[in-house]
Parts: sequence; C-alpha cells; structure tokens
Amino acid sequence: MNIKTDILVLGAGPAGMVSAVTARKYYPDKKITVIKNVDKGVIPCGIPYMFSSLKDPDENKTGAKALEDKGIKVAVDEAVKIDRSEKTVVTACGAEYSYAKLILAIGSDPIKPRIPGIDKKGVYMVYKDMDYLKTAISEIKAHKDVLIIGGGFIGVEFADEISKINGIKVHLVEVLPRLLANSFDEEFSSLAERVLNSRGVNIIKGARVVEIIGKDKVERVRFENGPDLSVDSVILGIGASPNTKLALDAGLELGRGKGIWVDEYMRTTDPDIFAVGDCAGKTDFYTRKDTPVMLASTATAEARIAGANLYSLKVIRENKGTIAIYSTYLDGLVLGSAGLTENSAKKEGFEVTTGNAEGMDKHPGSLPGASKIKVKLIFSGQSGIIMGGQVAGGISAGEMININGMAIQQRVSVTELETLQVATHPYLTSAPTMYPLVLAAQDASGKMQR
Amino acid sequence: MNIKTDILVLGAGPAGMVSAVTARKYYPDKKITVIKNVDKGVIPCGIPYMFSSLKDPDENKTGAKALEDKGIKVAVDEAVKIDRSEKTVVTACGAEYSYAKLILAIGSDPIKPRIPGIDKKGVYMVYKDMDYLKTAISEIKAHKDVLIIGGGFIGVEFADEISKINGIKVHLVEVLPRLLANSFDEEFSSLAERVLNSRGVNIIKGARVVEIIGKDKVERVRFENGPDLSVDSVILGIGASPNTKLALDAGLELGRGKGIWVDEYMRTTDPDIFAVGDCAGKTDFYTRKDTPVMLASTATAEARIAGANLYSLKVIRENKGTIAIYSTYLDGLVLGSAGLTENSAKKEGFEVTTGNAEGMDKHPGSLPGASKIKVKLIFSGQSGIIMGGQVAGGISAGEMININGMAIQQRVSVTELETLQVATHPYLTSAPTMYPLVLAAQDASGKMQR
Repeated sequence: MNIKTDILVLGAGPAGMVSAVTARKYYPDKKITVIKNVDKGVIPCGIPYMFSSLKDPDENKTGAKALEDKGIKVAVDEAVKIDRSEKTVVTACGAEYSYAKLILAIGSDPIKPRIPGIDKKGVYMVYKDMDYLKTAISEIKAHKDVLIIGGGFIGVEFADEISKINGIKVHLVEVLPRLLANSFDEEFSSLAERVLNSRGVNIIKGARVVEIIGKDKVERVRFENGPDLSVDSVILGIGASPNTKLALDAGLELGRGKGIWVDEYMRTTDPDIFAVGDCAGKTDFYTRKDTPVMLASTATAEARIAGANLYSLKVIRENKGTIAIYSTYLDGLVLGSAGLTENSAKKEGFEVTTGNAEGMDKHPGSLPGASKIKVKLIFSGQSGIIMGGQVAGGISAGEMININGMAIQQRVSVTELETLQVATHPYLTSAPTMYPLVLAAQDASGKMQR
Repeated sequence: MNIKTDILVLGAGPAGMVSAVTARKYYPDKKITVIKNVDKGVIPCGIPYMFSSLKDPDENKTGAKALEDKGIKVAVDEAVKIDRSEKTVVTACGAEYSYAKLILAIGSDPIKPRIPGIDKKGVYMVYKDMDYLKTAISEIKAHKDVLIIGGGFIGVEFADEISKINGIKVHLVEVLPRLLANSFDEEFSSLAERVLNSRGVNIIKGARVVEIIGKDKVERVRFENGPDLSVDSVILGIGASPNTKLALDAGLELGRGKGIWVDEYMRTTDPDIFAVGDCAGKTDFYTRKDTPVMLASTATAEARIAGANLYSLKVIRENKGTIAIYSTYLDGLVLGSAGLTENSAKKEGFEVTTGNAEGMDKHPGSLPGASKIKVKLIFSGQSGIIMGGQVAGGISAGEMININGMAIQQRVSVTELETLQVATHPYLTSAPTMYPLVLAAQDASGKMQR
C-alpha cells in the first residue's frame, strides 16, 4: 500500500504534534500525515501526577483529535525504514508513505542500565505509553516499599507523588552527592531534599545500585557499598537517550553528542528531512557544544522552527542555542532553574559573579497564601551578562523562572535587570522595593564594582 | 539648627526608601538622611487590602527600621524650602539640612475634583498615611452604601475588597464607558466587570458625579445625567498629580507633562538634585512623550538609577523610557497589562497586529487549582516588534505579565517569542504545546505572513 503525503511526521509527542500543527498553519494546502507508535500517548511531564494528583490516569492522555480537527491524518503504526532516494518510509504494518518533507520526532527511550536483575518483574521504566503506565501504576500502588533510582526531576517528582499514597514507603537513590545536582546549586537542591524528607522519603545519596535481586520478582537491591535494601518494586528514572536508529540506518549523520545532527533550522544532513525534540542534537547556548537537554518545551520550540521552515526558510531562528529551563513542584515548593548553575558555569570555565535575594512572594508577607521566595542569579563577572538563574518559592515562581529564561535568551546585562520595570501587586508578587530578581541583580552588581 | 548630611532624601515612600538604600550600597562612606512627612507610612499598593484581606491594617505599615538598620538617619518632618545656592533644605520644624546631593521623592497627591460637597464628612481620599487610613477604614466599615469614584486599579480593588464586608453595598462609578480602560482592551476589562458584578457591586459606567449632597455628611450624589444615588460615604480614586511645588519654588523646571523634568539619570535641571517616583516626569518608552505612569515599581526602578549615580554615572540606564506595567487581583481573577493596549497603540497612531491564545494554566487542566488563562499580544504589524501584552488568569499570571514586560523592554520580535524556550510543568504552567505567550505570538505571526 503506497500512501502519498506532502509532509510526513514520525512521532506524536509534543515535538511531533507541534511540528504538524505549525506546518498546517504555514502550509495550509499541503497534505500532512502523522505516524504515532503508541495508540494512547501521554503528556510526558504529567506522568508523575498520574499516581495521585489526577483522579484518573486517563486525564493525562494525548489523543489524535487535536490533529485530526486540523485536517491532519493520523496513523497508529511504526516507521521501520526510510528510503531517502525514493523519499519513502516503510512501516511495521507494511505501509509505504511517500513524502516531500519528512520530520523525525521520534523521541528518546528511557535508559536501562545493564545490571543483573534489571528485567525482573517489579522493575518499571518511564515509557510514554498510557497502557504500560496504567498497568505499572496499579501494580506499584499495591506495593509497600518502592525504590526510585535517579534523583533528577523525574525521580523527585515520582517520590513526592508516590509518598502521598497511604502505606507506601518511598526510597530514592541518587548516584551523585545531592538531588537535582545538574539543575540546581546546593542551596536550592537542599530545599527539595528537605521537602522529601518531611514526606518520609528515604533519600540515599552517593550510592549506586549494582544488582536487583529476587526470585520471581524484585525482593531487594544491592548497592556498590553498604547493605542491601528490601523493596518490592523499582522505578528507573535515570534519563533517556535519543532514538537515532532509523536516522542512522538511513545514512543521516549524528552530532558530536548522541542526537541526530541538525542545522539552525532543524534540517538534518538531508535537507528534506528535519529532526526535532529528544531525537535531535542540541547546541548549548553558551558554548556551542552539544548538550543533552531533553525537554518538551525545548522540543516544541524546535518543532515550531521546523514546521514553519519546511519548504523555505520563513521564520528566522532567533533562539540561538538551547538553554536548560526547568521547573518542578514538590508538595508546595516550586523550584525553577534556567541556564547554567553556578556549579555548571564554573565547570565549563566561566568566571562568574552571583547575586542572591530572599523575601516573600506577596506583600505584606502576612497576606494569606504567601510563600518565601529565594532567587539566585549567575552573571559573567567581567561581561555582566546573565548566564543563569534559580528560583524557589510558591506557585508564581513557575512563571518567574521564565522571566529569567527570557533574560538569558536576550543576553541581558546586570544593569538592565537592576533597573527592570516590573508589575508588582500585594497578592501576586514581592513588594516593588524588594522584587527578588531585581535585588539579586543589584546584589551581583554591587560585587562587580571595580 | 543646621544638620550636615551628604545625601538628603525627601520622602520615604518606595522611591525614597530605595534611593536611600541604593545610595548606601554604592556610597558606603556617605552620610545619608531621609526626611519623611508622615510618621507611619503605608505600602501604597497594599492600601485596598487593609479593609479585609489583612487581619490588622497595621500589617501594611512601612517603618524607618529598614533604613536605620543600614545606618541611614530618618527624621519625621516636612521640607518647605530648597535653597539651591546654599545647598540647604529648610523644614516645617525649623531645621536646616545641608546636602551635597538631594533626592526629591516627594510623590503625588490624590486628585480632588472641584465639585460642590467634596469636603463633606464621609468623603475619603486615598492618602498614604496610616493614621488617616485607619480612621477612614473604621468609619467606612460602619456604613451601608459606599460609592467609589474611579474605575481604575484603585477603584476596582477597593470595590472588590469592600464587597467582602458583610452589610455594605458597593457602588462603583466610572466616567469612561468601561472599567480599567487605560490599561486593558475591552475583552479583558469585561472580565473584571464580570467579577465585580458577581460580587454584587453596582457598576455605573459613562457617568460623572457633579455634586455631593448632604446636611452634615454625605447623603447622596448627583450625576451629570440620571437620578441621584443615595450613599453614606464616597471614596475618591480618580488618580493623582505629582507634587512639584517644592521643586518649582526652587526654580527647577517641569517636563512637558506635570512632573519635575529629569534626564536619563534622574537629574533635574540642577545636577545635584535628583527626582524620582511620582513627582518626576517620565518619558514614554514608545513615543518619547511625557507619560503619566505612577507606579511604585516604576518609582523603585528610577530610585535605583538615581541612588547609584549620585556622584558619578556608574550605572548606565538601559531601561529606555517608562512602560506601563500593572497587575491586579479581583476575587481570584488576575489581570496583568504591560506596554500599550491595542486601543492605546492605535490612538497613538501605531499600525498593529494582535495575537491571542487561551488555555488552562496547569496541564492537564483537570489538576486541582487550575484556572483559565488568556493572553493577548500587540505587535507592530510591519516591524514585528512587541508593543504590549495583556494576561488574565490565576496567580501565575502575576509573574507572566513580567515576561511580557521583559520582552517589551528588550523590543523582542514576534519570531523570538514564537520560538521562546520556556519552563513548563503540570502544576505551574500550560502545556509546552500550548504555552499561551508562544501561541499568541504564533497567532500574530500567522497574520503577518505576506
């Protein structure tokens, strides 16, 4: 069966969906087809909340309807081969699609460490597949001791959510000496640790699981050092690696990292094939090195660039390289990070000056619902350009980190931030005299005085 | 009594306080004195919340302690004359202060319309004076029908707060055909109106009060057209005008608007005298005209520029002109505006293209506490540069408007916003595929396709 389409998108995660929708907007006359490999997908960042915050895991599903409503064809199938000279894609179901433009939005797969026992019953991976996850969640909920391996965002969010379920003891193991170590400096990651401690999570840092032991199913895990830990299930949240096999088999090149090589406009080494999202290589905003950032928000930004630029370069890319920009929510504590941490900047060789501020996120701070807020900004000491920022606070910190993100993407100076005009309101922000982004910039500026 | 000081600040509102604190930071060896004309000041934007959100109005007070802790002298007194040749300031208590650098942070006074009956008992002004406000609040709380004149931010916030007090009927009169007309386009100001309606506020639009009638105290008000309205108190919230008498008497010049003329570094026509905050003239970011924006956050940005640059220009001003940037909170609805509205941009002669987006501020939208969110962005149609933005949503919209504010101050393009990298999280933001600032930019970009 040969199916002709103009634009073929492989994958229906955030990158695939936004590519298709953007292409529809810019190329209203083209025929667009999306091939998705799972029937029911999920909102990736919502996965942890399927355990208890959402009444029904199905609330986190993504469907084909949003695409079909825009006249985009959706097929549940899996691409197995790209023939670049014929400009066709062959699928597992035996269909052959002809394309003019192909977008690879084939994502990443969770990393499965090669340790003994990894395939035992009771070991779960974070697959973006509703059917898999629903089964996993209902099984995990019936357990007593759940071990999460990996203290990054996925790990801490799972730990927080599962700790809300009565009767489950949560254990969280991280190989580095602290949680969220790649995204936050110590004074922020310690806040996350404090929240999880207070929820009764058993945090084990600087420890590596080397074996999963059990007869039919998981019974305990063995560490590199120290005694075994008895658990009845294990969740792996140690990251993901880009899906590149399809691209490699088709003779496309990879970047110096692990993703598919793309230019500024998300074009691969074949100009009719684009790659976006987790499967595509990313260039770091500060260093031009490859960077392993895998985020739905990054993926959608790339998808908008690709979708608009399929047939001709219409939308100039102004977003010059990828920044890490994250937020998380742990039992009322919001943590956000954009750009480099002090730690990561120094590792990379940057000379930095930091600025700090703390206050309340409403004014006066006695208003109902007020939370403490804490901001750290990282500047190039000599150039005075912002390189990163971290925020801890209440709900509003989730958007405050995006002010930082905008500042970074604009390479704003400490002076500009020190005199930034902001909207302040008693119920919504710190006082204008105490607005923490501005105070942190002023703090850094003071230290830069020569 | 002659008192020598290096830096003399007149006024201890947000502008005065931040000037003094910033001067302390940049000039640690100088003697700094602040003269404040009320013993107990208030946080200006917190005034409406002294009615019911705060348990005790005193929670909204500002004190001298924050200044005194930094070695800044504070005197309660009032400056009555500046002698520029002698470089002295004479006060109401008869003291004479010698200064090297003088900062005028003497604010604004609420506008009192010249209508018959305006001085009757039961008519209240929004003075930034704790003692006055405490008396006013306790008297108003004993009334049954309260009329607020002015449907700007102060008026709508007072209406919302007072409507929370049992037994008081609130009437709100606005001379223009809609509320918040200077800061929001109709589709946003109508949301504010809907909230106030649902709280039982009687909104009277397109109406002008021409007389306040009563024997000893307010009994009713007369309108230009239509029947009288029986009320037992009246609150005036129709704006403020800059305090410039002291400056004019000293021979300083005003700008083309009503404020004291200042250069980019807040220096008046006398280079040893600075003016900041409501008393100082402001230059519009888009047009270079004088603009009547009076906001604590604007005032503090100016104060930081003045405080750093008193003895030499250390901090280059990168904030090129004043933007209007506001947020408000009405019974759970947050409204924010930055820059020009579509209406104000067109009035000024700009050709604009707008972009709109709506969604939920968490994802999936079924998460507890999720609110609708609605964004409108205003771009120069030809240049593609952002000129303004409006947001309506939940708590997070209060900081989201500051992302807009940063974009405006950076003169960001529609393309940049369309491909902006943002942090998204189920509990904190819309989905990455649906982030409303990005979608609104994409909507506008679509309309600009040539």
